[in-house]
Amino acid sequence: MLKLYSFGPGANSLKPMLTLHEKSLEHEQVLLNPAKFEHHSDWFKAINPRGQVPALDDGGRIVTESTVICEYLEDEHPTEVKLRPADSYDRAMMRIWTKWVDEYFCWCVSTIGWSRMVSKMVENLTDEEFEEKVRAIPIPEQQLKWRRAREGFPQDLLDEEMRKIAVSVRRLDDHLRDNEWLAGGMYSLADICNFAIANGMQHGFAELVNREDTPGLLRWIEQINERPAAKTMFASVPSEFGRQ
Amino acid sequence: MLKLYSFGPGANSLKPMLTLHEKSLEHEQVLLNPAKFEHHSDWFKAINPRGQVPALDDGGRIVTESTVICEYLEDEHPTEVKLRPADSYDRAMMRIWTKWVDEYFCWCVSTIGWSRMVSKMVENLTDEEFEEKVRAIPIPEQQLKWRRAREGFPQDLLDEEMRKIAVSVRRLDDHLRDNEWLAGGMYSLADICNFAIANGMQHGFAELVNREDTPGLLRWIEQINERPAAKTMFASVPSEFGRQ
Repeated sequence: MLKLYSFGPGANSLKPMLTLHEKSLEHEQVLLNPAKFEHHSDWFKAINPRGQVPALDDGGRIVTESTVICEYLEDEHPTEVKLRPADSYDRAMMRIWTKWVDEYFCWCVSTIGWSRMVSKMVENLTDEEFEEKVRAIPIPEQQLKWRRAREGFPQDLLDEEMRKIAVSVRRLDDHLRDNEWLAGGMYSLADICNFAIANGMQHGFAELVNREDTPGLLRWIEQINERPAAKTMFASVPSEFGRQ
Repeated sequence: MLKLYSFGPGANSLKPMLTLHEKSLEHEQVLLNPAKFEHHSDWFKAINPRGQVPALDDGGRIVTESTVICEYLEDEHPTEVKLRPADSYDRAMMRIWTKWVDEYFCWCVSTIGWSRMVSKMVENLTDEEFEEKVRAIPIPEQQLKWRRAREGFPQDLLDEEMRKIAVSVRRLDDHLRDNEWLAGGMYSLADICNFAIANGMQHGFAELVNREDTPGLLRWIEQINERPAAKTMFASVPSEFGRQ
Protein backbone atom coordinates (compact mmCIF):
# COMPACT_ATOMS: atom_id res chain seq x y z
CA MET A 1 0.00 0.00 0.00
CA LEU A 2 1.29 3.45 -0.89
CA LYS A 3 1.65 5.78 2.07
CA LEU A 4 2.14 9.52 1.65
CA TYR A 5 3.52 11.67 4.47
CA SER A 6 2.67 15.31 3.91
CA PHE A 7 1.24 18.53 5.21
CA GLY A 8 -2.20 19.63 4.00
CA PRO A 9 -3.08 20.13 0.30
CA GLY A 10 -0.85 23.10 -0.52
CA ALA A 11 2.64 23.81 -1.78
CA ASN A 12 4.97 20.85 -2.30
CA SER A 13 2.69 18.44 -0.42
CA LEU A 14 -0.07 19.06 -2.92
CA LYS A 15 1.98 17.76 -5.88
CA PRO A 16 2.03 14.02 -5.07
CA MET A 17 -1.32 14.28 -3.32
CA LEU A 18 -3.05 15.50 -6.47
CA THR A 19 -1.05 13.08 -8.63
CA LEU A 20 -2.26 10.16 -6.51
CA HIS A 21 -5.86 11.38 -6.77
CA GLU A 22 -5.67 12.01 -10.54
CA LYS A 23 -4.34 8.48 -11.03
CA SER A 24 -6.92 7.05 -8.56
CA LEU A 25 -4.13 5.23 -6.76
CA GLU A 26 -5.23 3.81 -3.44
CA HIS A 27 -3.04 5.19 -0.67
CA GLU A 28 -2.84 6.00 2.99
CA GLN A 29 -2.47 9.69 3.79
CA VAL A 30 -0.41 10.56 6.88
CA LEU A 31 -0.81 14.25 7.73
CA LEU A 32 1.91 15.96 9.72
CA ASN A 33 1.26 19.20 11.55
CA PRO A 34 3.90 21.84 10.77
CA ALA A 35 2.79 23.94 13.76
CA LYS A 36 3.81 21.03 15.99
CA PHE A 37 7.11 20.59 14.08
CA GLU A 38 6.19 16.97 13.47
CA HIS A 39 8.42 16.82 10.36
CA HIS A 40 11.46 17.45 12.58
CA SER A 41 10.55 14.72 15.06
CA ASP A 42 12.76 11.69 15.42
CA TRP A 43 10.13 9.26 14.14
CA PHE A 44 9.81 11.21 10.90
CA LYS A 45 13.54 11.84 10.48
CA ALA A 46 13.89 8.03 10.59
CA ILE A 47 11.78 8.08 7.39
CA ASN A 48 13.32 11.18 5.77
CA PRO A 49 16.58 12.23 7.46
CA ARG A 50 16.20 15.69 5.90
CA GLY A 51 13.02 16.26 7.90
CA GLN A 52 10.99 17.35 4.90
CA VAL A 53 7.60 16.42 3.53
CA PRO A 54 6.29 15.07 1.27
CA ALA A 55 7.75 11.56 1.46
CA LEU A 56 6.29 8.47 -0.17
CA ASP A 57 6.56 4.97 1.28
CA ASP A 58 6.03 2.37 -1.42
CA GLY A 59 6.27 -1.02 0.25
CA GLY A 60 9.15 0.13 2.43
CA ARG A 61 11.04 2.06 -0.24
CA ILE A 62 11.05 5.77 0.60
CA VAL A 63 10.99 8.36 -2.17
CA THR A 64 11.42 12.04 -1.28
CA GLU A 65 11.31 15.37 -3.16
CA SER A 66 7.84 16.23 -4.42
CA THR A 67 8.60 16.44 -8.14
CA VAL A 68 10.65 13.24 -8.06
CA ILE A 69 7.75 11.47 -6.31
CA CYS A 70 5.38 12.55 -9.10
CA GLU A 71 7.68 11.17 -11.82
CA TYR A 72 8.15 8.01 -9.74
CA LEU A 73 4.39 7.46 -9.56
CA GLU A 74 4.23 7.70 -13.35
CA ASP A 75 7.19 5.31 -13.75
CA GLU A 76 6.18 2.72 -11.15
CA HIS A 77 2.38 2.90 -11.21
CA PRO A 78 1.31 3.47 -14.81
CA THR A 79 -2.44 3.97 -15.13
CA GLU A 80 -4.95 4.79 -17.85
CA VAL A 81 -4.54 8.38 -16.79
CA LYS A 82 -1.21 9.66 -18.15
CA LEU A 83 0.28 12.75 -16.56
CA ARG A 84 3.35 12.95 -18.81
CA PRO A 85 3.20 13.62 -22.56
CA ALA A 86 4.24 10.64 -24.71
CA ASP A 87 6.30 12.80 -27.06
CA SER A 88 9.89 13.36 -25.85
CA TYR A 89 9.97 17.03 -26.76
CA ASP A 90 6.68 17.73 -24.99
CA ARG A 91 7.99 15.80 -22.00
CA ALA A 92 11.11 17.99 -21.99
CA MET A 93 8.89 21.09 -22.02
CA MET A 94 6.98 19.59 -19.07
CA ARG A 95 10.28 19.11 -17.19
CA ILE A 96 11.37 22.69 -17.88
CA TRP A 97 8.18 23.81 -16.11
CA THR A 98 8.55 21.41 -13.17
CA LYS A 99 12.20 22.42 -12.81
CA TRP A 100 11.30 26.11 -12.93
CA VAL A 101 8.73 25.81 -10.19
CA ASP A 102 11.24 24.00 -7.96
CA GLU A 103 14.11 26.40 -8.61
CA TYR A 104 12.37 29.74 -8.88
CA PHE A 105 8.61 30.05 -8.42
CA CYS A 106 8.20 28.00 -5.24
CA TRP A 107 10.97 29.84 -3.33
CA CYS A 108 9.69 33.39 -3.70
CA VAL A 109 6.13 32.38 -2.83
CA SER A 110 7.40 30.30 0.07
CA THR A 111 9.37 33.16 1.64
CA ILE A 112 6.37 35.48 1.60
CA GLY A 113 4.18 32.67 2.94
CA TRP A 114 6.64 32.09 5.76
CA SER A 115 6.85 35.76 6.64
CA ARG A 116 3.05 35.93 6.82
CA MET A 117 2.16 32.62 8.41
CA VAL A 118 5.03 30.68 9.90
CA SER A 119 6.00 33.73 11.94
CA LYS A 120 2.71 33.33 13.83
CA MET A 121 3.48 29.68 14.61
CA VAL A 122 6.65 30.55 16.54
CA GLU A 123 5.88 33.92 18.12
CA ASN A 124 4.47 32.43 21.32
CA LEU A 125 7.44 30.17 22.02
CA THR A 126 10.03 31.14 24.64
CA ASP A 127 13.59 31.57 23.34
CA GLU A 128 14.46 28.25 24.94
CA GLU A 129 11.57 26.41 23.32
CA PHE A 130 12.39 27.96 19.97
CA GLU A 131 16.08 27.00 20.15
CA GLU A 132 15.09 23.44 20.98
CA LYS A 133 12.90 23.36 17.85
CA VAL A 134 15.69 24.78 15.70
CA ARG A 135 18.21 22.23 16.97
CA ALA A 136 15.96 19.44 15.68
CA ILE A 137 16.07 20.79 12.09
CA PRO A 138 18.64 18.84 10.06
CA ILE A 139 19.18 21.37 7.23
CA PRO A 140 21.10 24.60 8.07
CA GLU A 141 19.24 26.62 5.42
CA GLN A 142 15.95 25.58 7.04
CA GLN A 143 17.25 26.59 10.46
CA LEU A 144 17.97 30.04 9.02
CA LYS A 145 14.45 30.23 7.58
CA TRP A 146 12.90 29.44 10.97
CA ARG A 147 15.08 32.07 12.63
CA ARG A 148 14.03 34.66 10.08
CA ALA A 149 10.40 33.68 10.50
CA ARG A 150 10.79 34.50 14.20
CA GLU A 151 13.00 37.59 13.92
CA GLY A 152 11.49 38.95 10.73
CA PHE A 153 12.79 38.58 7.18
CA PRO A 154 15.00 41.46 5.93
CA GLN A 155 12.85 43.91 3.95
CA ASP A 156 15.17 43.88 0.92
CA LEU A 157 14.77 40.09 0.73
CA LEU A 158 10.97 40.39 0.89
CA ASP A 159 11.03 43.07 -1.84
CA GLU A 160 13.20 40.88 -4.07
CA GLU A 161 10.89 37.89 -3.54
CA MET A 162 7.86 40.03 -4.45
CA ARG A 163 9.65 41.04 -7.65
CA LYS A 164 10.21 37.37 -8.46
CA ILE A 165 6.58 36.55 -7.74
CA ALA A 166 5.50 39.23 -10.23
CA VAL A 167 7.89 37.78 -12.83
CA SER A 168 6.52 34.28 -12.18
CA VAL A 169 2.88 35.30 -12.42
CA ARG A 170 3.57 37.10 -15.70
CA ARG A 171 5.38 34.07 -17.13
CA LEU A 172 2.51 31.74 -16.26
CA ASP A 173 -0.19 34.08 -17.52
CA ASP A 174 1.65 34.82 -20.77
CA HIS A 175 1.64 31.12 -21.51
CA LEU A 176 -1.84 30.33 -20.22
CA ARG A 177 -3.57 33.07 -22.19
CA ASP A 178 -2.83 31.20 -25.38
CA ASN A 179 -2.62 27.63 -24.11
CA GLU A 180 -5.05 25.52 -22.13
CA TRP A 181 -2.22 23.69 -20.34
CA LEU A 182 1.47 24.33 -19.70
CA ALA A 183 3.06 21.59 -21.82
CA GLY A 184 2.24 19.23 -24.65
CA GLY A 185 -1.39 20.33 -25.04
CA MET A 186 -2.46 18.15 -22.11
CA TYR A 187 -2.92 18.29 -18.36
CA SER A 188 0.43 17.07 -16.99
CA LEU A 189 2.81 17.17 -14.06
CA ALA A 190 3.78 20.64 -15.30
CA ASP A 191 0.27 21.82 -14.40
CA ILE A 192 0.07 19.87 -11.13
CA CYS A 193 3.44 21.11 -9.87
CA ASN A 194 2.79 24.75 -10.76
CA PHE A 195 -0.81 24.64 -9.52
CA ALA A 196 0.53 23.42 -6.17
CA ILE A 197 2.24 26.79 -5.74
CA ALA A 198 -0.15 29.06 -7.66
CA ASN A 199 -3.43 27.89 -6.12
CA GLY A 200 -4.60 30.33 -3.48
CA MET A 201 -2.64 33.25 -4.95
CA GLN A 202 -5.95 34.60 -6.28
CA HIS A 203 -6.68 35.27 -2.59
CA GLY A 204 -3.27 35.81 -0.95
CA PHE A 205 -1.82 37.80 -3.86
CA ALA A 206 -5.05 39.19 -5.31
CA GLU A 207 -3.28 42.40 -6.39
CA LEU A 208 -1.23 40.25 -8.80
CA VAL A 209 -3.53 37.32 -9.65
CA ASN A 210 -6.96 38.53 -10.74
CA ARG A 211 -9.41 38.49 -13.64
CA GLU A 212 -8.10 41.71 -15.16
CA ASP A 213 -4.31 41.27 -14.97
CA THR A 214 -3.96 37.49 -15.29
CA PRO A 215 -7.06 36.07 -17.00
CA GLY A 216 -5.14 33.05 -18.33
CA LEU A 217 -3.63 32.11 -15.00
CA LEU A 218 -6.91 32.56 -13.13
CA ARG A 219 -8.86 30.50 -15.70
CA TRP A 220 -6.30 27.70 -15.34
CA ILE A 221 -6.38 27.78 -11.50
CA GLU A 222 -10.17 27.56 -11.57
CA GLN A 223 -10.14 24.84 -14.20
CA ILE A 224 -7.88 22.60 -12.13
CA ASN A 225 -9.94 23.23 -9.00
CA GLU A 226 -12.99 22.01 -10.94
CA ARG A 227 -11.41 18.67 -11.83
CA PRO A 228 -13.02 15.72 -10.01
CA ALA A 229 -9.65 14.59 -8.59
CA ALA A 230 -8.96 18.03 -7.14
CA LYS A 231 -12.44 18.22 -5.62
CA THR A 232 -12.06 14.79 -4.05
CA MET A 233 -8.63 15.67 -2.73
CA PHE A 234 -9.66 18.97 -1.17
CA ALA A 235 -12.76 17.35 0.32
CA SER A 236 -10.83 14.46 1.86
CA VAL A 237 -7.73 16.20 3.20
CA PRO A 238 -8.06 19.09 5.65
CA SER A 239 -5.88 22.18 5.21
CA GLU A 240 -3.53 22.86 8.08
CA PHE A 241 -4.88 26.33 8.49
CA GLY A 242 -8.19 24.93 9.69
CA ARG A 243 -6.51 22.70 12.27
CA GLN A 244 -5.28 23.21 15.83
CA MET B 1 21.33 16.00 -37.13
CA LEU B 2 21.63 16.91 -33.45
CA LYS B 3 23.32 20.24 -32.81
CA LEU B 4 24.55 21.23 -29.35
CA TYR B 5 25.27 24.86 -28.48
CA SER B 6 27.53 25.07 -25.46
CA PHE B 7 30.63 26.44 -23.82
CA GLY B 8 33.64 24.14 -23.38
CA PRO B 9 33.47 20.81 -21.49
CA GLY B 10 32.79 22.06 -17.96
CA ALA B 11 29.84 22.88 -15.71
CA ASN B 12 26.35 22.65 -17.24
CA SER B 13 27.68 22.43 -20.80
CA LEU B 14 29.50 19.24 -19.95
CA LYS B 15 26.31 17.36 -19.02
CA PRO B 16 24.74 16.94 -22.49
CA MET B 17 28.18 16.90 -24.11
CA LEU B 18 29.23 13.83 -22.13
CA THR B 19 25.78 12.25 -22.53
CA LEU B 20 26.06 12.56 -26.32
CA HIS B 21 29.54 11.01 -26.26
CA GLU B 22 28.54 8.18 -23.91
CA LYS B 23 25.65 7.33 -26.21
CA SER B 24 27.83 7.75 -29.34
CA LEU B 25 25.20 10.02 -30.87
CA GLU B 26 26.45 11.83 -33.92
CA HIS B 27 26.12 15.57 -33.43
CA GLU B 28 27.43 18.94 -34.41
CA GLN B 29 29.10 20.88 -31.61
CA VAL B 30 28.73 24.67 -31.73
CA LEU B 31 31.05 26.29 -29.19
CA LEU B 32 30.20 29.73 -27.86
CA ASN B 33 32.83 31.91 -26.23
CA PRO B 34 31.65 33.30 -22.87
CA ALA B 35 34.46 35.87 -22.88
CA LYS B 36 32.92 37.33 -26.02
CA PHE B 37 29.40 37.17 -24.49
CA GLU B 38 28.27 35.16 -27.49
CA HIS B 39 25.44 33.59 -25.48
CA HIS B 40 23.89 37.07 -25.09
CA SER B 41 24.11 37.88 -28.79
CA ASP B 42 20.95 38.32 -30.81
CA TRP B 43 21.59 35.30 -33.02
CA PHE B 44 21.80 33.01 -29.98
CA LYS B 45 18.87 34.61 -28.14
CA ALA B 46 16.82 33.75 -31.22
CA ILE B 47 17.62 30.12 -30.35
CA ASN B 48 17.32 30.42 -26.55
CA PRO B 49 15.62 33.66 -25.47
CA ARG B 50 17.09 33.22 -21.99
CA GLY B 51 20.61 33.55 -23.41
CA GLN B 52 21.88 30.43 -21.70
CA VAL B 53 23.85 27.42 -22.87
CA PRO B 54 23.62 24.52 -23.33
CA ALA B 55 20.81 24.31 -25.88
CA LEU B 56 20.07 21.37 -28.13
CA ASP B 57 18.64 21.66 -31.62
CA ASP B 58 17.04 18.38 -32.67
CA GLY B 59 15.74 18.87 -36.19
CA GLY B 60 14.55 22.37 -35.41
CA ARG B 61 13.09 21.63 -31.98
CA ILE B 62 15.08 23.44 -29.28
CA VAL B 63 15.53 21.88 -25.85
CA THR B 64 17.16 23.92 -23.08
CA GLU B 65 18.25 23.29 -19.47
CA SER B 66 21.15 20.88 -19.21
CA THR B 67 19.51 18.20 -17.06
CA VAL B 68 16.33 18.28 -19.14
CA ILE B 69 18.43 17.84 -22.30
CA CYS B 70 20.07 14.72 -20.81
CA GLU B 71 16.70 13.13 -20.00
CA TYR B 72 15.45 14.15 -23.45
CA LEU B 73 18.35 12.36 -25.12
CA GLU B 74 17.45 9.21 -23.19
CA ASP B 75 13.76 9.55 -24.10
CA GLU B 76 14.16 10.46 -27.77
CA HIS B 77 17.37 8.69 -28.74
CA PRO B 78 17.45 5.36 -26.91
CA THR B 79 20.70 3.47 -27.47
CA GLU B 80 22.35 0.27 -26.28
CA VAL B 81 24.02 2.43 -23.66
CA LYS B 82 21.44 3.25 -20.97
CA LEU B 83 22.14 6.19 -18.69
CA ARG B 84 19.02 5.84 -16.53
CA PRO B 85 18.32 2.85 -14.28
CA ALA B 86 15.42 0.66 -15.43
CA ASP B 87 14.03 0.32 -11.90
CA SER B 88 11.66 3.18 -10.93
CA TYR B 89 13.05 3.56 -7.43
CA ASP B 90 16.63 3.70 -8.68
CA ARG B 91 15.55 6.21 -11.29
CA ALA B 92 13.99 8.35 -8.53
CA MET B 93 17.29 8.20 -6.62
CA MET B 94 19.05 9.31 -9.81
CA ARG B 95 16.66 12.26 -10.10
CA ILE B 96 17.22 13.28 -6.48
CA TRP B 97 20.93 13.58 -7.34
CA THR B 98 20.39 15.48 -10.59
CA LYS B 99 17.94 17.81 -8.81
CA TRP B 100 20.39 18.38 -5.97
CA VAL B 101 23.21 19.35 -8.29
CA ASP B 102 20.95 21.85 -10.08
CA GLU B 103 19.48 23.38 -6.92
CA TYR B 104 22.44 23.34 -4.55
CA PHE B 105 25.84 22.02 -5.63
CA CYS B 106 26.17 23.87 -8.94
CA TRP B 107 25.32 27.30 -7.49
CA CYS B 108 27.93 27.46 -4.76
CA VAL B 109 30.68 26.20 -7.07
CA SER B 110 29.51 28.59 -9.78
CA THR B 111 29.69 31.68 -7.54
CA ILE B 112 33.27 30.92 -6.50
CA GLY B 113 34.18 30.16 -10.12
CA TRP B 114 32.71 33.48 -11.20
CA SER B 115 34.53 35.42 -8.49
CA ARG B 116 37.80 33.82 -9.58
CA MET B 117 37.46 33.72 -13.34
CA VAL B 118 34.63 35.74 -14.79
CA SER B 119 35.89 38.80 -12.94
CA LYS B 120 38.99 38.68 -15.13
CA MET B 121 36.87 38.62 -18.29
CA VAL B 122 35.24 41.97 -17.51
CA GLU B 123 37.95 43.93 -15.69
CA ASN B 124 39.39 45.47 -18.85
CA LEU B 125 36.08 46.79 -20.17
CA THR B 126 35.19 50.46 -19.80
CA ASP B 127 32.04 51.20 -17.78
CA GLU B 128 30.24 51.95 -21.01
CA GLU B 129 31.29 48.69 -22.65
CA PHE B 130 30.31 46.77 -19.55
CA GLU B 131 26.86 48.37 -19.31
CA GLU B 132 26.25 47.53 -22.95
CA LYS B 133 27.08 43.87 -22.21
CA VAL B 134 24.79 43.83 -19.19
CA ARG B 135 21.88 45.32 -21.15
CA ALA B 136 22.04 42.35 -23.53
CA ILE B 137 21.49 39.83 -20.68
CA PRO B 138 17.83 38.78 -20.59
CA ILE B 139 17.72 37.44 -17.00
CA PRO B 140 17.89 40.01 -14.13
CA GLU B 141 19.59 37.53 -11.77
CA GLN B 142 22.32 37.01 -14.39
CA GLN B 143 22.75 40.76 -14.76
CA LEU B 144 23.36 40.94 -11.00
CA LYS B 145 25.91 38.13 -11.21
CA TRP B 146 27.86 39.97 -13.94
CA ARG B 147 27.79 43.17 -11.88
CA ARG B 148 29.09 41.34 -8.85
CA ALA B 149 31.78 39.67 -10.96
CA ARG B 150 32.98 43.15 -11.89
CA GLU B 151 32.52 44.91 -8.52
CA GLY B 152 33.44 41.95 -6.36
CA PHE B 153 31.09 39.52 -4.61
CA PRO B 154 30.25 40.37 -0.97
CA GLN B 155 32.58 38.44 1.34
CA ASP B 156 29.73 37.00 3.45
CA LEU B 157 28.23 35.53 0.28
CA LEU B 158 31.56 33.96 -0.70
CA ASP B 159 31.94 32.52 2.81
CA GLU B 160 28.45 31.03 2.70
CA GLU B 161 29.11 29.51 -0.73
CA MET B 162 32.35 27.95 0.54
CA ARG B 163 30.39 26.44 3.44
CA LYS B 164 27.94 24.94 0.96
CA ILE B 165 30.78 23.58 -1.17
CA ALA B 166 32.20 21.81 1.89
CA VAL B 167 28.74 20.34 2.65
CA SER B 168 28.41 19.20 -0.98
CA VAL B 169 31.85 17.59 -1.12
CA ARG B 170 31.12 15.72 2.13
CA ARG B 171 27.78 14.50 0.81
CA LEU B 172 29.32 13.16 -2.39
CA ASP B 173 32.29 11.55 -0.67
CA ASP B 174 30.14 9.93 2.04
CA HIS B 175 28.17 8.22 -0.71
CA LEU B 176 31.08 7.40 -3.01
CA ARG B 177 33.23 5.78 -0.33
CA ASP B 178 30.75 2.91 -0.17
CA ASN B 179 29.29 3.00 -3.66
CA GLU B 180 30.92 2.88 -7.06
CA TRP B 181 28.24 5.14 -8.58
CA LEU B 182 25.67 7.62 -7.23
CA ALA B 183 22.44 5.77 -8.03
CA GLY B 184 21.15 2.32 -8.92
CA GLY B 185 24.55 0.62 -8.92
CA MET B 186 25.28 1.89 -12.42
CA TYR B 187 26.86 4.85 -14.22
CA SER B 188 23.93 7.19 -14.85
CA LEU B 189 22.87 10.78 -15.43
CA ALA B 190 23.34 11.24 -11.66
CA ASP B 191 27.07 10.69 -12.18
CA ILE B 192 27.31 12.73 -15.38
CA CYS B 193 25.46 15.74 -13.93
CA ASN B 194 27.46 15.77 -10.69
CA PHE B 195 30.76 15.08 -12.45
CA ALA B 196 30.09 18.13 -14.63
CA ILE B 197 30.38 20.30 -11.52
CA ALA B 198 32.86 18.24 -9.45
CA ASN B 199 35.48 17.64 -12.14
CA GLY B 200 38.41 20.01 -11.69
CA MET B 201 37.72 20.58 -7.98
CA GLN B 202 40.70 18.31 -7.25
CA HIS B 203 42.73 21.24 -8.64
CA GLY B 204 40.65 24.37 -7.93
CA PHE B 205 39.50 23.23 -4.48
CA ALA B 206 42.41 20.90 -3.61
CA GLU B 207 42.11 21.82 0.08
CA LEU B 208 38.69 20.13 0.05
CA VAL B 209 38.96 17.48 -2.67
CA ASN B 210 42.05 15.32 -2.20
CA ARG B 211 43.19 11.74 -1.60
CA GLU B 212 43.15 12.06 2.18
CA ASP B 213 39.87 13.87 2.86
CA THR B 214 37.70 12.64 -0.01
CA PRO B 215 39.09 9.35 -1.34
CA GLY B 216 35.68 8.22 -2.63
CA LEU B 217 34.99 11.42 -4.51
CA LEU B 218 38.48 11.57 -6.01
CA ARG B 219 38.35 7.91 -7.11
CA TRP B 220 35.01 8.58 -8.82
CA ILE B 221 36.26 11.75 -10.59
CA GLU B 222 39.30 9.84 -11.87
CA GLN B 223 37.20 6.86 -12.88
CA ILE B 224 34.88 8.97 -15.03
CA ASN B 225 37.84 10.79 -16.60
CA GLU B 226 39.21 7.39 -17.63
CA ARG B 227 36.06 6.38 -19.50
CA PRO B 228 36.54 6.26 -23.29
CA ALA B 229 33.65 8.68 -23.88
CA ALA B 230 35.13 11.25 -21.49
CA LYS B 231 38.56 10.93 -23.10
CA THR B 232 37.10 11.37 -26.58
CA MET B 233 35.08 14.36 -25.43
CA PHE B 234 37.95 16.14 -23.73
CA ALA B 235 40.21 15.43 -26.72
CA SER B 236 37.72 16.76 -29.25
CA VAL B 237 36.35 19.84 -27.50
CA PRO B 238 38.73 22.60 -26.36
CA SER B 239 38.25 24.17 -22.94
CA GLU B 240 37.48 27.88 -23.04
CA PHE B 241 40.39 28.60 -20.76
CA GLY B 242 42.83 27.62 -23.46
CA ARG B 243 41.18 29.91 -26.03
CA GLN B 244 41.46 33.61 -26.86
